[in-house]
Amino acid sequence: MQDKLEAINANLVHMSELVGTAIATATTALLTDDLSMAEQVITGDDEINRLNAEVEELCFRVAALEAPMATDLRMTMGGIRMATSLERMGDLAVHIAKQVRLRYPNPSIPVDLQSTFREMGDAASKIVAEAGRVIETRDTTLADKMKQYDDTLDRLHRDLFTAVLSDSWDHGVEAAIDVTLLSRFYERFGDHAVSLARRVIYIVTGEPYANI
Amino acid sequence: MQDKLEAINANLVHMSELVGTAIATATTALLTDDLSMAEQVITGDDEINRLNAEVEELCFRVAALEAPMATDLRMTMGGIRMATSLERMGDLAVHIAKQVRLRYPNPSIPVDLQSTFREMGDAASKIVAEAGRVIETRDTTLADKMKQYDDTLDRLHRDLFTAVLSDSWDHGVEAAIDVTLLSRFYERFGDHAVSLARRVIYIVTGEPYANI
Repeated sequence: MQDKLEAINANLVHMSELVGTAIATATTALLTDDLSMAEQVITGDDEINRLNAEVEELCFRVAALEAPMATDLRMTMGGIRMATSLERMGDLAVHIAKQVRLRYPNPSIPVDLQSTFREMGDAASKIVAEAGRVIETRDTTLADKMKQYDDTLDRLHRDLFTAVLSDSWDHGVEAAIDVTLLSRFYERFGDHAVSLARRVIYIVTGEPYANI
Repeated sequence: MQDKLEAINANLVHMSELVGTAIATATTALLTDDLSMAEQVITGDDEINRLNAEVEELCFRVAALEAPMATDLRMTMGGIRMATSLERMGDLAVHIAKQVRLRYPNPSIPVDLQSTFREMGDAASKIVAEAGRVIETRDTTLADKMKQYDDTLDRLHRDLFTAVLSDSWDHGVEAAIDVTLLSRFYERFGDHAVSLARRVIYIVTGEPYANI
């Protein structure tokens, strides 16, 4: 059974790497209005979806054939949820990429918000890298760092709202909607990473964990 | 094993009923700026989340103890995904309710968009009712009707975008962002219902189904 559990874990780590590439590429596409990078994120999502289905099958094969107990049972049950979180994070990177494609060749975001979205992309990349490490090492102390990046994403999302609603906003309604949606994608990305970390903590400890 | 599979199905049907109540109540709260109805949706979500966890456990118990095959195996594996879709739909109803709470006692939407959101709420209620029937009866021909409601939600979402971006939009940027987000919640609600129906078709036929 251990080899199958390791295969589940390896798939999840690999998914986290692909999601990390997806969000970094989507952010660069957004900052540089690069259509081909956006397309890369969109087509790259197929592989993330395939791995998601593979993890589901592996988890069920272990459950059906090995009658896992305790931590192993939680790992088998949690594997599907973690794969779902990573798959949703991949979808959010795709949502960002599709927004770039929709507005191309026009820029997707106003120049004065470039640094905000760069920061969001940076925090999102870091949070998924951390999620990958938490999955790989089951070192749940790393989860605190994730909380920190998630807080950054929440703060940037709030700041962006303030900017969009201020009197000095002069980019019009369409840009306001665009950047709010984009910012929401990053914010949700962080939420899914945190829910994934909670799942790992539950697998390791057997206790639901709400502190992050 | 059949009794456990029936319990999974009964839980999923019950979830679909609770999600139906949630989206209907959230829509009424939105249309009438009713804070207590909004709170009802937010607290009611706990029960949907509890059922989600219960379905997950039931599915794994069946997988671990009964070694299901063919349709039963697909039902066991698919049960978790269907529960996830319903749980996400419940979350979207909560997102709508939280928006009502955020703007209360002010109205959440301009009067001239009331009929659009009434239509969205109507289509969303119908699509989840249909999803419940598909789960209950496994009558996959019902899935076509769901496609129709999903198309309605997509169309309303597009129309709303057009309204918000037209020169005659005079409700300002904040209202534009609010209604676009709200509309997106309904549109995503429809997407999750459709993905749930696809899952049922896969369980029944064993073939992935992309036509709806």
